[in-house]
Amino acid sequence: MADDDGIFLRNAWYVAALNHELIDGKKLARTILERPIVLYRGASGKVVALDDRCCHRAAPLSMGRVEGDDIRCMYHGMKFAADGKCIQIPGQDAIPAKLGVRSYPVVERYNMIFIWTGDPEKADPKLILDYPPLEDPKWRGLPGYMHYKANWLLIVDNLSDFAHLAFVHTNTLGGSEEYAYKTKPVAIEKLDDGFRVERWHMGADAPPYHKKVISNRADKVDRRNIGRMIVPGIFTLDTTFAPAGQGVEKGAQVPGTRSYRNAQFMTPETRSSTHFFWNYLHDFDIDNPNIALSLRHSLEEAFNEDKDIIEAQQKVFDVDPDYQLLAIGADAPLTYFRWLFARRLDAEKGAARAA
Amino acid sequence: MADDDGIFLRNAWYVAALNHELIDGKKLARTILERPIVLYRGASGKVVALDDRCCHRAAPLSMGRVEGDDIRCMYHGMKFAADGKCIQIPGQDAIPAKLGVRSYPVVERYNMIFIWTGDPEKADPKLILDYPPLEDPKWRGLPGYMHYKANWLLIVDNLSDFAHLAFVHTNTLGGSEEYAYKTKPVAIEKLDDGFRVERWHMGADAPPYHKKVISNRADKVDRRNIGRMIVPGIFTLDTTFAPAGQGVEKGAQVPGTRSYRNAQFMTPETRSSTHFFWNYLHDFDIDNPNIALSLRHSLEEAFNEDKDIIEAQQKVFDVDPDYQLLAIGADAPLTYFRWLFARRLDAEKGAARAA
Amino acid sequence: MADDDGIFLRNAWYVAALNHELIDGKKLARTILERPIVLYRGASGKVVALDDRCCHRAAPLSMGRVEGDDIRCMYHGMKFAADGKCIQIPGQDAIPAKLGVRSYPVVERYNMIFIWTGDPEKADPKLILDYPPLEDPKWRGLPGYMHYKANWLLIVDNLSDFAHLAFVHTNTLGGSEEYAYKTKPVAIEKLDDGFRVERWHMGADAPPYHKKVISNRADKVDRRNIGRMIVPGIFTLDTTFAPAGQGVEKGAQVPGTRSYRNAQFMTPETRSSTHFFWNYLHDFDIDNPNIALSLRHSLEEAFNEDKDIIEAQQKVFDVDPDYQLLAIGADAPLTYFRWLFARRLDAEKGAARAA
Repeated sequence: MADDDGIFLRNAWYVAALNHELIDGKKLARTILERPIVLYRGASGKVVALDDRCCHRAAPLSMGRVEGDDIRCMYHGMKFAADGKCIQIPGQDAIPAKLGVRSYPVVERYNMIFIWTGDPEKADPKLILDYPPLEDPKWRGLPGYMHYKANWLLIVDNLSDFAHLAFVHTNTLGGSEEYAYKTKPVAIEKLDDGFRVERWHMGADAPPYHKKVISNRADKVDRRNIGRMIVPGIFTLDTTFAPAGQGVEKGAQVPGTRSYRNAQFMTPETRSSTHFFWNYLHDFDIDNPNIALSLRHSLEEAFNEDKDIIEAQQKVFDVDPDYQLLAIGADAPLTYFRWLFARRLDAEKGAARAA
Repeated sequence: MADDDGIFLRNAWYVAALNHELIDGKKLARTILERPIVLYRGASGKVVALDDRCCHRAAPLSMGRVEGDDIRCMYHGMKFAADGKCIQIPGQDAIPAKLGVRSYPVVERYNMIFIWTGDPEKADPKLILDYPPLEDPKWRGLPGYMHYKANWLLIVDNLSDFAHLAFVHTNTLGGSEEYAYKTKPVAIEKLDDGFRVERWHMGADAPPYHKKVISNRADKVDRRNIGRMIVPGIFTLDTTFAPAGQGVEKGAQVPGTRSYRNAQFMTPETRSSTHFFWNYLHDFDIDNPNIALSLRHSLEEAFNEDKDIIEAQQKVFDVDPDYQLLAIGADAPLTYFRWLFARRLDAEKGAARAA
Repeated sequence: MADDDGIFLRNAWYVAALNHELIDGKKLARTILERPIVLYRGASGKVVALDDRCCHRAAPLSMGRVEGDDIRCMYHGMKFAADGKCIQIPGQDAIPAKLGVRSYPVVERYNMIFIWTGDPEKADPKLILDYPPLEDPKWRGLPGYMHYKANWLLIVDNLSDFAHLAFVHTNTLGGSEEYAYKTKPVAIEKLDDGFRVERWHMGADAPPYHKKVISNRADKVDRRNIGRMIVPGIFTLDTTFAPAGQGVEKGAQVPGTRSYRNAQFMTPETRSSTHFFWNYLHDFDIDNPNIALSLRHSLEEAFNEDKDIIEAQQKVFDVDPDYQLLAIGADAPLTYFRWLFARRLDAEKGAARAA
């Protein structure tokens, strides 16, 4: 593989796929952190992730045939086990031990497939981010996937910033320019693996995406957002809308409160493109499938607003990789996150050199 | 910006746009001499040209919103004045002085927008080429724009050469192979900023584009062409058709004479693509709009004949940048022009080093 | 021309075109071994191959006009003879001796145009591979052309290998997985300029492509294949199907035997794309044109099965040029061929240095 210049944090779990992408025997060819990988679910139910290049003549294994939990390259018929070892060569009895392809640790959780492209010894499933709503039956959602032609950190920047809501998402997620001009950025709470930010917006109109799934659309709401951005690139956002003026900010249990839980996973495809997985969950009327559908549509619409501008940023850097950015006060969260990420990257490289 | 290798003459005026490209509030994103630029007409009528990248996070300002003469980046809401200075940051009171984007001097003349990408101190509007027919009501024309996937000097070469008329434009601008084989190249008059060439073609058939807009199509004509090629890449061609044999070459005022004035402006987009602006003006029946339309169609047809071959040349150089050309006698004009251009480029680089 | 890194064997004949590609005055622009070349048949019937770039301003001669055996560049009218010499410059009497474009030796044989891009002194037509069925009226076929987005050696590898038949071509050329698992690779006979391999397959079903053109489809056959792979990239395959069990392997003349002769020529276009010419000939019912058509369809279908996987291999190398392959026992033929090719390449480079 071309040297990745140490730009990726490899000792980390990334979402490789939504598990529904592997139904019906699908062999999913997906580049992850600039590694070509084939993913499939074997006959035993186990999910397998292998280098998507036969070690013999480089034919993609994703053009091969799954046999049990194994996969056979359909060029010359070599067969590989789930651990990547070559276990059959047509017309040849002895199989040299070095014959095989790289196998990647995978964990299936939250209806997603997590992958580890770094040192397999360190692939501890406990390191996967804990976000219970993704498996709690109280919450309902419809997971989504989008592809960005942009470096993942540009998406992290976007999600680290609440100021852009007013300018990019007025008609989808809501956000008011007038409010933006008057409001100071909210301080972030620095975490070891990211940051947390809490924001309240009292007595406001319900934003468009919320209005679409409620009946009392004209009522004012008190909105609370708690966002977390976690290394290497996971964003969660816990949102609550309570009827306005009933003391939800003081801890009152306000009837008619509606909550959302939102998890977004950025997985670098290459240094200039990103897989984006997300699920926007709600806790009301969960047996009405139209709510999850409506929310997915609304969020997709909003993400596409971001995507337009993020991919435009990427094009600027494609033409002029050295273009220097100038920070403003509102950049504290993204600046902190990029600093944290760089520190983690240095630590990983230092450990690799020491080893 | 990626280093442009000193291939562009920057201290010069280039056409950035036809002024009709900025009607209806259009924000025109156009790369000029490898600089991404946004052009718009502000509320005051002033034309503004700014770097098309927000200094904050590199989002294109052409995706922004014009407010008066200012423009607001619609990612995080930063607002820039016509001189490029940042004048508002939502949620932040103090604006660091260094915050801003590059602004480019522009001059509106001849229904075109001229831009200066070099040292702004030297942007003297008097340096814009004087070509009065472009604003004289006696002349009428319909300006045109074409995009070439070719280095601008290949277009300059093309226009510096009259020999190709016979082979490329027989059916449009006219030109006879038989004549080409018999005729020697005409000497050019060397100018400080380019060259001038005068050619007479006596008692010939009217060329196809001229025939389409006159009634006496079968009559022979005495044709005079005076071409000028000016640094950095402007070509003017003054053409007169007089009824043949009546002494126009001796200065006689021959009734029925028809004249054209033609100005062509080459603006490098990148080192391998070019914006081409032109206007072909006529001095007869100027209230009949079909004449200007017919001439624009004819010239576009002819330019497309050139474009096919010029873009094919570019592809040869794309594959083999070192391909060596061999000059012939007819190349004297283009050889002189390239020499002059190189000298001007050296002078500009020398001045930059001295400064 | 960009340096080709010494990856091509230049002192060799390659197929440049099928001769029917030059009918009706066609000027064929084709890149061969990374050289842009124009091919045409002159008025005398002679086939001409010239550098497809005018020496004057690099305009493609393939956009020019054939005049007799000469070609005229239709930019400025320069005319070139079949040997590449410039023989006319409009408006100029003296023609400098160095003016001209490179001309390539060509030989028309077997309804194909062979070209030599190396040292013209060494272009001996006797070096063209002798394969008599291509001109023997006893054999009938319909030649084909395909374009591969892959390095030619990946196609050579493919054809050097019989193991892939079972996995890639089960439904076209035939090949049984069960048989593949049981069978050892057949030893090759090493030749000075390639290798030869002979394989027998006794009492088997006729393969699909053969079944389509015979009436007794259910009968078992004894199949013999003799393959030869020749430097720089020519593959021939002589195939015979005899009714099974009648002693064809002992030399018996078995009635009802059907034979094929197959020649395939790989000509590098660039280091990552290839022209592929082929003819699959048969010796029965030669006046029934549907047999040649059926065989061409069948082979095209099979080659497209290869093309899918070969172009996928190329993409792996495009992304990761240093990807290391691991050989298995069945690779002996391709390993030998690549070794032979490298030795020939070294010899050519050594001779070039000595000269």
